[in-house]
Amino acid sequence: MRLLAVLSMVSVCLVACSRATDNFQPETIIALERGALDRWGKGDPRGFFEIMATDQTYFDPMTASRIDGHEAVKKYIAPFTGRIRIERVEMIDPKVQRSGDLAVLTFNLVNYGAQMDGSPKTTVRWNSTEVFQRLNGSWKIVHSHWSYVKPVLKEGASE
Amino acid sequence: MRLLAVLSMVSVCLVACSRATDNFQPETIIALERGALDRWGKGDPRGFFEIMATDQTYFDPMTASRIDGHEAVKKYIAPFTGRIRIERVEMIDPKVQRSGDLAVLTFNLVNYGAQMDGSPKTTVRWNSTEVFQRLNGSWKIVHSHWSYVKPVLKEGASE
Repeated sequence: MRLLAVLSMVSVCLVACSRATDNFQPETIIALERGALDRWGKGDPRGFFEIMATDQTYFDPMTASRIDGHEAVKKYIAPFTGRIRIERVEMIDPKVQRSGDLAVLTFNLVNYGAQMDGSPKTTVRWNSTEVFQRLNGSWKIVHSHWSYVKPVLKEGASE
Repeated sequence: MRLLAVLSMVSVCLVACSRATDNFQPETIIALERGALDRWGKGDPRGFFEIMATDQTYFDPMTASRIDGHEAVKKYIAPFTGRIRIERVEMIDPKVQRSGDLAVLTFNLVNYGAQMDGSPKTTVRWNSTEVFQRLNGSWKIVHSHWSYVKPVLKEGASE
């Protein structure tokens, strides 16, 4: 009986202690994203490169199909280096849904004064999903999905 | 020393045994999604309603901002009941990225012969992200993001 008691104490601790040391803060994820977005708005994609996981998957309105793997995603994004300027980035209502080592960050994004290659400034509104995974203690992006809010389609543009 | 040996065996089993009984199959997630999509193509959204988690978050090209909570998502989707018809649904290259009780399913979707309210049939191509969480042993959708593949925007449509 004494052994049983010890064993159950051990199992309780294995569960409770690991939770206690987890100490997850949603703000950690939000700050990582905000940091990468700020650099992106200055034409620097390396903020995103630094937080990509090896097996990242990626969608945006210009991709013909899902892009798989951070090498392919980097290759796709790198040509935008130095071409993007965004005056102000607003992250609306960021929300983190987390279980264990995966965290889903979602928000609407408004890019004010956005330009590419010196084009006229526009405001661009995005639906944003960024899934982070904790790998060796660091949160990295394993999936990104970017899309326009209520895009107004050219008539006859769909097949 | 004997107690220590027993304790380490217990901890090893707590980790290894829980993994062994996990028995996760990506096909489970893919089949859930496919089942819900098939019903959606017949004008029946209840396939999705049945696999929504209470705290689901949701984006699609018609949403002005993220929709939070399955009651709000149901209210948004319910009016489409009986109005959608899709002849054939093709799920391209579904991929599941999983850690513990969260699984991210991504795919490109092609809806052939899609109609709403008897409109002319079109082909519609989607980028699709569905995040599932295992809750009380069942996988439920906690986040959905649907967007058009390469939407052709009306000129001057962005602000």
